[in-house]
Amino acid sequence: MSGDCDFGLIGLAVMGENLALNVESRGYKVAVYNRTTSKVDDLIAGRAAGKDFVGTHTIEDFVKAVKRPRKLMMLVKAGPAVDAIIDQLLPLCEPGDIIIDGGNTYYADTERRTKRVEDAGFLYVGCGVSGGEEGALKGPSLMPGGSADAWPEIKDMFQSIAAKVGPNNDIPCCEWVGPRGAGHYVKMVHNGIEYGDMQLICEAYQLLKELGGLSNDELYDVFDSWNDGDLQSYLIEISRDIFSAKDDQGGDGYLVDKILDIAGAKGTGKWMSQLALDLGVPSTLVTTAVFARGLSAQKEARVRASEKLEGPGKSQNPEMRAVVEKLIGDKPAFIEAVRKALYASKIVSYAQGFVQLQAASAEHDWNLDYGQSALLWRGGCIIRAKFLDRIKEAFDAEPNLENLLLNSFFDDAIQEAQESWRAVVATASVLGIPVPAFCTALNYYDGYRLARLPANLLQAQRDYFGAHTYKRVDMEGTFHSEWLDLRKTPKS
Amino acid sequence: MSGDCDFGLIGLAVMGENLALNVESRGYKVAVYNRTTSKVDDLIAGRAAGKDFVGTHTIEDFVKAVKRPRKLMMLVKAGPAVDAIIDQLLPLCEPGDIIIDGGNTYYADTERRTKRVEDAGFLYVGCGVSGGEEGALKGPSLMPGGSADAWPEIKDMFQSIAAKVGPNNDIPCCEWVGPRGAGHYVKMVHNGIEYGDMQLICEAYQLLKELGGLSNDELYDVFDSWNDGDLQSYLIEISRDIFSAKDDQGGDGYLVDKILDIAGAKGTGKWMSQLALDLGVPSTLVTTAVFARGLSAQKEARVRASEKLEGPGKSQNPEMRAVVEKLIGDKPAFIEAVRKALYASKIVSYAQGFVQLQAASAEHDWNLDYGQSALLWRGGCIIRAKFLDRIKEAFDAEPNLENLLLNSFFDDAIQEAQESWRAVVATASVLGIPVPAFCTALNYYDGYRLARLPANLLQAQRDYFGAHTYKRVDMEGTFHSEWLDLRKTPKS
Repeated sequence: MSGDCDFGLIGLAVMGENLALNVESRGYKVAVYNRTTSKVDDLIAGRAAGKDFVGTHTIEDFVKAVKRPRKLMMLVKAGPAVDAIIDQLLPLCEPGDIIIDGGNTYYADTERRTKRVEDAGFLYVGCGVSGGEEGALKGPSLMPGGSADAWPEIKDMFQSIAAKVGPNNDIPCCEWVGPRGAGHYVKMVHNGIEYGDMQLICEAYQLLKELGGLSNDELYDVFDSWNDGDLQSYLIEISRDIFSAKDDQGGDGYLVDKILDIAGAKGTGKWMSQLALDLGVPSTLVTTAVFARGLSAQKEARVRASEKLEGPGKSQNPEMRAVVEKLIGDKPAFIEAVRKALYASKIVSYAQGFVQLQAASAEHDWNLDYGQSALLWRGGCIIRAKFLDRIKEAFDAEPNLENLLLNSFFDDAIQEAQESWRAVVATASVLGIPVPAFCTALNYYDGYRLARLPANLLQAQRDYFGAHTYKRVDMEGTFHSEWLDLRKTPKS
Repeated sequence: MSGDCDFGLIGLAVMGENLALNVESRGYKVAVYNRTTSKVDDLIAGRAAGKDFVGTHTIEDFVKAVKRPRKLMMLVKAGPAVDAIIDQLLPLCEPGDIIIDGGNTYYADTERRTKRVEDAGFLYVGCGVSGGEEGALKGPSLMPGGSADAWPEIKDMFQSIAAKVGPNNDIPCCEWVGPRGAGHYVKMVHNGIEYGDMQLICEAYQLLKELGGLSNDELYDVFDSWNDGDLQSYLIEISRDIFSAKDDQGGDGYLVDKILDIAGAKGTGKWMSQLALDLGVPSTLVTTAVFARGLSAQKEARVRASEKLEGPGKSQNPEMRAVVEKLIGDKPAFIEAVRKALYASKIVSYAQGFVQLQAASAEHDWNLDYGQSALLWRGGCIIRAKFLDRIKEAFDAEPNLENLLLNSFFDDAIQEAQESWRAVVATASVLGIPVPAFCTALNYYDGYRLARLPANLLQAQRDYFGAHTYKRVDMEGTFHSEWLDLRKTPKS
């Protein structure tokens, strides 16, 4: 028995409610269910009043209300709750039915659940959803992966509710990503890149405020102008807006100055960092951003440390200090140098994200389309930016491009920016301003473009103390040396 | 039924064989067993000939050969092999018997196994063993943790075989670490610090070679002199030795120049990084070192990139370039600046390692003794150095010291070094030499000593796009703002 709803949604927190309203607004009839059933009644009597909704109070009624093949989507807290709902849905499903998880789920859970639901005879989709509450309502970025047979069934609906980009505003930010957990992995990398973008913006803010002496009004103008150029993006735009917001608790001045400098985190950046470590790919930007949030959370320890630990002395490094003080003394030039440092670092961050996607795709046999991933992030989501068009173009031109830094557009951009980037990092280092993400980006660039790193010494050390062996530059094979016999006799 | 052996050892790879010989050399009778029994026969007929050994060919005979309460130690590949041996030993054990794992085991496995073996009525010890093959034979650093009742039984033997330090060379590098997986966790942090030390030395090498133009002979002399000062350590000493080793494959020149610049890794550094991410503590040195090894492994990609990606242009940043070129032009001064940068970075690395130990100890209720951990690493192991005495003194003076950087000795050392450290990082950044670990150390120092980080903007962004809320500097409570209403109306 089945009803006439086109879509079912479980989990009526703000994201779920907004997504349900979005689907209904595209001409679909929507069944909704929530464990705390009063939330169903509130929605039906409130925001859904007069709309094509069916509220249900049991999971059985919910499933019955949806027409076959059913599209049953969860937007619940990632973790055991998802398994619990799958437990409830499986006995009620019929052939062809599709269970969809739209939460911020760890990709490996989606790998496992896809197999489980497919083994039970149904279809499963793990769908990354980005864009926050507003995106869910008006058009998110959607990154679906899982059972390939589900895609033709959900494609029209999902593309209709997704954000649109392109000159005619008709290219949906929703395409099939790949098998099993591929969609959630791509969403996780999106979030990790978001961590990097936010940290880089914070470092630019710190430099402009502490070294450039910019007021919030000036920061507004700088970010407003940046948003007209290469850095155009949602995060630059909302940062600009933030600098204009006055205290909303009755105090004087700007709200941003009243906010405690402790950054929270939900875990996706951590996952991406940990998986990069497992893959052996150096995704240093996201990891640096995660650690920077960790250090921000040690607020009381930092306050204590600030009372004891000195920064650079004004009388030290006089020549170097004179050069960097000249740089920051020319305010427009310094602002432009920081802009270039931010842009170059951002390019490195995205390059690392795509390298990790490539490594994960190879490991899990997902056959990801990288240009398409860039397109999915072009609108709707938090990292949306014109910049993503360039990434799509880079992968369209060369689908197996091994690193974005090798693409001419990005290479040119780095070349144009690198002297400023280096000068900004040097300046911050000399004057004692932490810019960990600018630094790690520059170090990645300088390490990646070096044919010869000093790891020969490291491998020699490993062979010396642990007989771990090494390879040579001039012969095939694996070698171990008797270092104690080869060394010069120590003096003592 | 039990025999008259004082100790049993399973797993006769080099480490196991050497450890067994070490135990026997202290006056103990040793039973040995290995799955491939020919290794038992080889040992008994070879290195153990004429010594107080009993070779056994079955696990039953092995257990029977050891007197109660039995000390049965495994030195096998970490992972399922350890569980398999526990499976075999449990039915043969008698009350009071102690099963000991001396491998590089993930601490959580030791947590689990301690419980399992204790539940079966016996005692379990997870013992970190450091020092490589030579250490195992002559005196390793031992970090035992697990069932507290086991410690009185094994203490004399373990302390007798451990490395000794102190003015009278009688303080063993072996003390009880704590419950369950505490010993293996401390060993993991040792290894992670080792990763950091090795990476820092490589960066110093790169700077001295590429910017200072030092030959291997000059590097030998520099490292030899460094080994007489604050940096005195096993890793500096063997690096010095490595610079003196001539090619042992018949080629001209030095062996270090013939070694391929790809660094391998066994996984403990990765574990420490991943666990730091889980704990939310910024152990950036070890993570940077792990990622640097990852980048080193992308050798072919780096060679391709090196042909395309340009470094800094010689005509750019002329004033800054002039300053840094003057610095590197004075060779003795540059060498001393690099030494100071290395020393300051090393202090940060150890400070981070102990912060992670503190966080892990709190999380797992291990009640670790930090000064004692420093003492365990004072001799025998790969990171052994005089430096560890200073750390022990710091924690002896203040057992709950929250960060080594706050200790006066280390604070003074950083103050003495910081101008050089900043100059070296600035120089490398301007001239395009990657020094990711020097940089991340400096950024940690500069972030940690800042009472106010720019995370206020980050938290504002999170509240803007995701309603994640924030705290204020001037009021209690949790706040969310309607940013769209507060912002200045954008121009378009």
